[in-house]
Amino acid sequence: MDSLPKGYSCGVAAAGFKKRDRYDLALVVSETEAVTAGVFTTNLFQAAPVQRCREQLAARPYARAVVVNSGQANACTGADGLADALETQKIVGTLANLPAESVLCASTGVIGPRLRLDLWRKVAPELKKSLGRTGPEDVARAMMTTDTRHKLVRRSVALSGGEVRLVAMAKGAGMIGPNMATMLAFLFCDAAVEPVWWQSLLSDVADRSFNSVIVDGDTSTNDTALALANGASGVSADSEADRALLAKAVEEALFDLAYMLVDDAEGGTKVARICVTGAANNADAELVARAVGTSPLVKTALFGEDANWGRVVCAAGRAGAVFDPEALSLRFGDVLVFSRGRPASGDLDALLNPVMKRREVPILIDLGAGTGVFEALASDLSREYVSINADYRS
Amino acid sequence: MDSLPKGYSCGVAAAGFKKRDRYDLALVVSETEAVTAGVFTTNLFQAAPVQRCREQLAARPYARAVVVNSGQANACTGADGLADALETQKIVGTLANLPAESVLCASTGVIGPRLRLDLWRKVAPELKKSLGRTGPEDVARAMMTTDTRHKLVRRSVALSGGEVRLVAMAKGAGMIGPNMATMLAFLFCDAAVEPVWWQSLLSDVADRSFNSVIVDGDTSTNDTALALANGASGVSADSEADRALLAKAVEEALFDLAYMLVDDAEGGTKVARICVTGAANNADAELVARAVGTSPLVKTALFGEDANWGRVVCAAGRAGAVFDPEALSLRFGDVLVFSRGRPASGDLDALLNPVMKRREVPILIDLGAGTGVFEALASDLSREYVSINADYRS
Repeated sequence: MDSLPKGYSCGVAAAGFKKRDRYDLALVVSETEAVTAGVFTTNLFQAAPVQRCREQLAARPYARAVVVNSGQANACTGADGLADALETQKIVGTLANLPAESVLCASTGVIGPRLRLDLWRKVAPELKKSLGRTGPEDVARAMMTTDTRHKLVRRSVALSGGEVRLVAMAKGAGMIGPNMATMLAFLFCDAAVEPVWWQSLLSDVADRSFNSVIVDGDTSTNDTALALANGASGVSADSEADRALLAKAVEEALFDLAYMLVDDAEGGTKVARICVTGAANNADAELVARAVGTSPLVKTALFGEDANWGRVVCAAGRAGAVFDPEALSLRFGDVLVFSRGRPASGDLDALLNPVMKRREVPILIDLGAGTGVFEALASDLSREYVSINADYRS
Repeated sequence: MDSLPKGYSCGVAAAGFKKRDRYDLALVVSETEAVTAGVFTTNLFQAAPVQRCREQLAARPYARAVVVNSGQANACTGADGLADALETQKIVGTLANLPAESVLCASTGVIGPRLRLDLWRKVAPELKKSLGRTGPEDVARAMMTTDTRHKLVRRSVALSGGEVRLVAMAKGAGMIGPNMATMLAFLFCDAAVEPVWWQSLLSDVADRSFNSVIVDGDTSTNDTALALANGASGVSADSEADRALLAKAVEEALFDLAYMLVDDAEGGTKVARICVTGAANNADAELVARAVGTSPLVKTALFGEDANWGRVVCAAGRAGAVFDPEALSLRFGDVLVFSRGRPASGDLDALLNPVMKRREVPILIDLGAGTGVFEALASDLSREYVSINADYRS
C-alpha cells in the first residue's frame, strides 16, 4: 500500500459488534517497534482500553500495533472489562505474531456491555487475511460510529536526511467537548523520533487542536489519541530544524482532523469559529469560548441562521470570566454587533444575514480586559442531533 | 378580586411588543407600601430593569407596584435602556398615581432592541382601565414567552394573629440554568414582615428552588424574583413560630413554581429529578448534578426514553468532583444499574423501561465519598426545543 508511511500495514474486518456488514474492527501493524505517545480522556471513568494503554505506555513508550473496534466501548465494565481488553490484545498478538503487550487497543461505542469476544475470535482469520491488503481509509471507516464520513489526513515532510510521511485519522461526531471527546485519533509516522519529545509534541498539539473542539460539552470515557513513529523511513528528526518541520506537519494534521470532527458533528450544519481575545488571561478566554460554544441557545440560533447575538453576549456574561461588560465587543465576521454595552447601529439583521448563511461562522469576542486569547470550534445544535442521540442505542 | 391577597390589584394590557392580541404588559399595585425583597441574575450583563430594581431596593426595600412586560428584554441596551426603564416607571407611576421610584420593573424577551415606549404610552390607558378588574392569572399569562401555560400558586397560612395569604407566579421555559434563568417570579403576600428577614427568606428559598432547576444551563440577563409583603391583612409575622409558618408557605410556593418551570421547559417531555448523595461536600454534589442535568447526551436519552445509564456515569466522571469511580452507585428509580465500577446484573433495559416511560424520572447518584448532597430538576432535550430556539426571533 503506497499510501501508507513506510513499515506499516493495515487490516480491517466486519465483526458485527453493532451493525452487520460494515467494518468495525481495524488493525495497524508496524514492522518494527514504534516510539508511541498517547493522550487520554480526563474523565474519572476510564474505559478498559484506556487503562490498558496508559499502563503499557507508562511502562515503555513503544508499540507494534494498534487495534480499534467500534460499536462497543468496553467502558464501565470493571475488572471483567480489563480482562476482556487484555484478551483482545492476545487475540491480535496471535494473529499478527506479536507479543500481546506490544498491541495497543482502543474502543468506541455503547458504554456498559461486555466486549463480544466470541465475535473477536470468529473474525480474527478475516482480520489476519486483510492485513497488508488494505489502506488507512478503511481503518478510518472501521472506527466510525455516528460519523457520516471518515476523517484522514496525510503529510510528507522533507527533513534534512530525506522524506518522512505520516497519516492521521480520527473518529468523532458526538460526545465531544472539553478535554477530549469520544474521539479516537491515531497518527502513524515513519520518522525516527526521541520518545520524550514525541510525547510532549502530541500532548501539546492535542491540547490545542482536539481539546478546543466543542460539540456537546461531554467528555467520554474512551478518548484516546496515539501517535506512532517507527523510523522505517530511515530518517531521524534529531536537529531542532527537523523537529520543527515534523512538529508543524503533526500540528497541521491534527488541526485538520479537529476541524473535520466539528464539521461532521452529529447533526451539524455549521462550524462556529469562536475567537476570544482581550481576556485577563488565557483561562478566562477559554471559559468564555466554552460557555458560548456549549450554549444550547447559541447553538440553536446558529442552526436557525438567526443572528441572535444577545445569546452570545449572555453566555459570555455568565462564563465566570472577569471583565467589564461595558468593555466587551462582539463581531460576527467583519460586522461589529455589540460594544460599549449596546448594539451597534445599523440594520444588524441585514448585515449579519450573509454571515449566518455561511457554513463557517466566525464569532469574535474581545473582552477588553487583557491579553488572554482562546479559539474554539463549535458545532450547532439541530433537530437531527436530538434524533441521533435519542435513538442511538436502538 | 377575592383571589388576591389583601391590598393588591392587577391590570393587564396587550401592547403588541412582539405578538398582537395577547397580554404582554401587566401591573400589580399594592394600596400601601410593601416590604420588598429581590434576587437577581448573576450574569455580568444585567438588563436595565434588573439594574433599576437593584438600585431601588438597595436604597429602600419597599415598593408600591411591579410592572412586567414580555417580548422585549431591554438587555444589552446601555444607558439608553436604563433611561427607557426609568421612563416605563414614570408612565406607570402616572397612570397609577404613584411616585415613579415606587414602581419596580421587569422585562423578558429578545435581547438587544430598545423598548417600544411608543407602545407603552399608547396602551397606558388600557392598562389603567384594567387595573382592579383582573386577577393574577392574567398577570402570569402576560409574562409568558415560550411558556405553554401560566404558572401560579396560592397559599394561605393561619398565623397566631389571623390568616395571611400569598400568590406567586413565574415564567420560565427556556434559558434556565445555574443561578437563575430567564425566569421572572413574583410573590405578593398580605402579611406584615420585617424587611431583613423577608430578604433573607427569599434569598435562601430562591437558592434552593429556582437555582436547582436546569433546562439548558444558560443564565439570562433578566432573571428577577421579587417578593412583596404589604401587611394589608393586618397580621404580622413576628414570632419565631409565625415566621416559620410563613417561611414554609413561601418555600412550598417557590418549589411548586420551580417544578412547573421544568415541567413546562421548552419542548420538554420529562422531568429528571437528579439526586446526588455521598459527595465529599455539597459543592461536589452540585457539580455532579449540574453535569448530568446539562449533558445533552443525558437529556436526549431521557427524551428517547432510552435507559442509556452510561451517559450519566460519564457525565458524573467529568464533572470535576472528587470521588473514587469504584465507589459510585447509580439508580434509576428503585433499580440499581451501576456500582463497583460495573453494571448491575439482570436485564437492565427490561427493568428500566417502565422507569423511563414515566414523566418524572428519578436519577439517584451516590458518590461514596462523604455526606454532601444536592438535588436538581432537569428537563430533557427534544427536537421541539431545537425548533423553538432556532426560530425564536422569527
